[in-house]
Amino acid sequence: MKWWLTTIGAALSLNIAAKDFTLDDTLAFQITESLTVEVGPRLAGSEADARAVVWAEQKFKQLGFDKVWSEPFTMQYWQRGQASLNVGEPFRQNLVVTALGGSIATPFDGINAQVVMFDSLDQLKQASPGEVKDKIVFINKSMGKDKLGSFYGDVVGARSQGAVEAAKLGAKAIIIRSVGTSINRFAHTGIMRYSDDVARIPAAAISVPDAMQLSRMLSHQPELSLQLQMQNKLPGDVTSHNVIAEITGSKYPNEIVLISAHLDSWDEGTGALDDGAGVGLVMATAALLKQQGRPERTVRVVLFGNEEGGLVGARAYAAKHTANLKNHVFASESDFGAGRIWRLDTGFGEKSQSFAKTLQQKLASFGIEMGTNTASGGPDVSILRAQGVPVVSLQQDGTDYFDYHHTPNDTLDKVDPESLKQNLKVWLLTTATIANSRVDLRK
Amino acid sequence: MKWWLTTIGAALSLNIAAKDFTLDDTLAFQITESLTVEVGPRLAGSEADARAVVWAEQKFKQLGFDKVWSEPFTMQYWQRGQASLNVGEPFRQNLVVTALGGSIATPFDGINAQVVMFDSLDQLKQASPGEVKDKIVFINKSMGKDKLGSFYGDVVGARSQGAVEAAKLGAKAIIIRSVGTSINRFAHTGIMRYSDDVARIPAAAISVPDAMQLSRMLSHQPELSLQLQMQNKLPGDVTSHNVIAEITGSKYPNEIVLISAHLDSWDEGTGALDDGAGVGLVMATAALLKQQGRPERTVRVVLFGNEEGGLVGARAYAAKHTANLKNHVFASESDFGAGRIWRLDTGFGEKSQSFAKTLQQKLASFGIEMGTNTASGGPDVSILRAQGVPVVSLQQDGTDYFDYHHTPNDTLDKVDPESLKQNLKVWLLTTATIANSRVDLRK
Repeated sequence: MKWWLTTIGAALSLNIAAKDFTLDDTLAFQITESLTVEVGPRLAGSEADARAVVWAEQKFKQLGFDKVWSEPFTMQYWQRGQASLNVGEPFRQNLVVTALGGSIATPFDGINAQVVMFDSLDQLKQASPGEVKDKIVFINKSMGKDKLGSFYGDVVGARSQGAVEAAKLGAKAIIIRSVGTSINRFAHTGIMRYSDDVARIPAAAISVPDAMQLSRMLSHQPELSLQLQMQNKLPGDVTSHNVIAEITGSKYPNEIVLISAHLDSWDEGTGALDDGAGVGLVMATAALLKQQGRPERTVRVVLFGNEEGGLVGARAYAAKHTANLKNHVFASESDFGAGRIWRLDTGFGEKSQSFAKTLQQKLASFGIEMGTNTASGGPDVSILRAQGVPVVSLQQDGTDYFDYHHTPNDTLDKVDPESLKQNLKVWLLTTATIANSRVDLRK
Repeated sequence: MKWWLTTIGAALSLNIAAKDFTLDDTLAFQITESLTVEVGPRLAGSEADARAVVWAEQKFKQLGFDKVWSEPFTMQYWQRGQASLNVGEPFRQNLVVTALGGSIATPFDGINAQVVMFDSLDQLKQASPGEVKDKIVFINKSMGKDKLGSFYGDVVGARSQGAVEAAKLGAKAIIIRSVGTSINRFAHTGIMRYSDDVARIPAAAISVPDAMQLSRMLSHQPELSLQLQMQNKLPGDVTSHNVIAEITGSKYPNEIVLISAHLDSWDEGTGALDDGAGVGLVMATAALLKQQGRPERTVRVVLFGNEEGGLVGARAYAAKHTANLKNHVFASESDFGAGRIWRLDTGFGEKSQSFAKTLQQKLASFGIEMGTNTASGGPDVSILRAQGVPVVSLQQDGTDYFDYHHTPNDTLDKVDPESLKQNLKVWLLTTATIANSRVDLRK
């Protein structure tokens, strides 16, 4: 019997013989493989998103869940069109560009205008209209790397708010250096926002090498024009779904331990790291938990829809289940790739800190440190957290996550099966511990 | 004075004071930067190729060359169009594809056919027409990595000859796993060939992750259809140019030491590794050689046109200069990226092996070993080698070269300025040694 089976077996207090212990630690990878191969990219609201919902319902049933259902919600559907960005004379060449999610199209013939570069969103905010009016704004802020992805917050503002700030100053369009950490020539998409009281202008990202190239061009030739063309569409409201399944608790079926990931992905990769691996992990966790003896509390797996568009499925879930959120004794989401889990962050009541320590000690043999008590629980789960649901964040090593995030390069080969095995054991042990306890983590 | 200045100074036997020695070891990078930023991609025969020719002539003049001229040649122009490859039911999704250079277009609506996978070109050759007829052939051969790029030969046959072999068996089209060594999701283009007596079918490459994905799909669902669309054009014959410049020899102006690279590049990257770095290296080498005292023999820099289309410029050069090739005492080309040079291979007469050893000893302080006497001298120079011109290959470390080769990802950020400094010193020392000697390397 392998050491981790002993660890998990002990943690579960299972009264089974070693020979019956058949945890398949490749199950998370198998599920991730199935989703990314058989469905592939699954942009919220698209035909592929609908196929993903069917895939998820079928997979839950195959895995032996007790209940499987989907909950519809309404969302604004945004569709990517072709995009191109051409540098004008004297350096005529194309740059690698992608539309930011939610961006309007350009006119069919594109927008042709002089480019003006800023080092950051803050620098743009300090500009005068005279510097920006009728130009294409280029924000060239680079992103650092660490395990926690903590530089994301510094740069993502240019993506989410750049179009509004540029439009306030009269810009015709905005392009940003990708929110990404690799020098591979992929542009990183991601959601952007408009404001009702500011003109809507097209917004796009160029790859890191192209941002470096454009910056070099501007040092050779400060007055340079760009031609941006994008044919995105906003077809209006459509229906998407959260897909939900449960392993019913043996003793406390009304107490819900919620584990989750998001089913949708951006459209250019196959969403393997974001968030196929998370889907694989939480589906496998609950399935294996049942296989090894039904937990005392109910384990509910939620695959949220349209996380990428702005936690749309999570908001719908919280709204629908408001009256019942007091029964959600715990929630967590896996949505940061497939790197090894190295830290336990909690979002528990103050009196539950000793339980947090107990949990961390159980996880210590997997290399997991104690973190903070300020966990969000994950993007979608943060909505539940805001309504008082206790959470943990099982922090994955995200050093390379933003190399691939939101690019065509987010494909299954980037998921390390060995790391995913470690992830699965940690999720299994964490979920089992909470589902088989009486602890009230709100206190 | 830095150690390598001493080495190079001693090798050149220059009668100059240390303070006058102003070798700018960043010059090769500066030139590479200028070409890739100001011209960018420069597919042979295109408008950008013509701009590259003007750029090269101007740059040679700026660098103080004694003579600068261009030699026209006629070539078949091939133009890339949009390409797409869609997987049919039940796994509907797009794969990353690029047309192989020279490939015909598909019909406007594309080719929709079942795919049949082979592990290699050899396995395809052994197939029966019944296995292949009316299908899209997929050759899924992976490529290994080493310093010499020696696995290229094993896999490039699928690219160059795959369309002919597939068409002999009645295939409708062929797609190959990219001839490349990275799991980044770029398809690698490169020239392919037709045969006059075999039907012409469209030929394309998919990225390595997409080849892995398609292979996984086929293991889930052996009967799978693909839809391939490509809109390439073959506009007919156009004129391109070799650009040539000389530093006239002080004592033996009719003896030509030829150093070279190719000016053209594939159209999706900026051709920084292939072959902007080579262009930077040989232009800088000759310019710095003149700056430090005119060499005794003439140093001729040739920037060949249309290497990628099949050494078209090199063949034109050899044809035009046939009568004068006996005056070409030496030739070499830099066309393997910008990795550190680690080995000297020669293609000298047997009696010149002691000179080869002397040269290697001069280069030893740069970490350079003695290699073989079977050097090609580089792709274009191999044409001169076949006509008896002595050559060397200054072997660069190409371990990562095929990560980027012929992809959109071949951009300036992939060129390591420090490696390029080492390259420049080695080229300078090698060229100076031969240009200031009386050795007859044919013997």
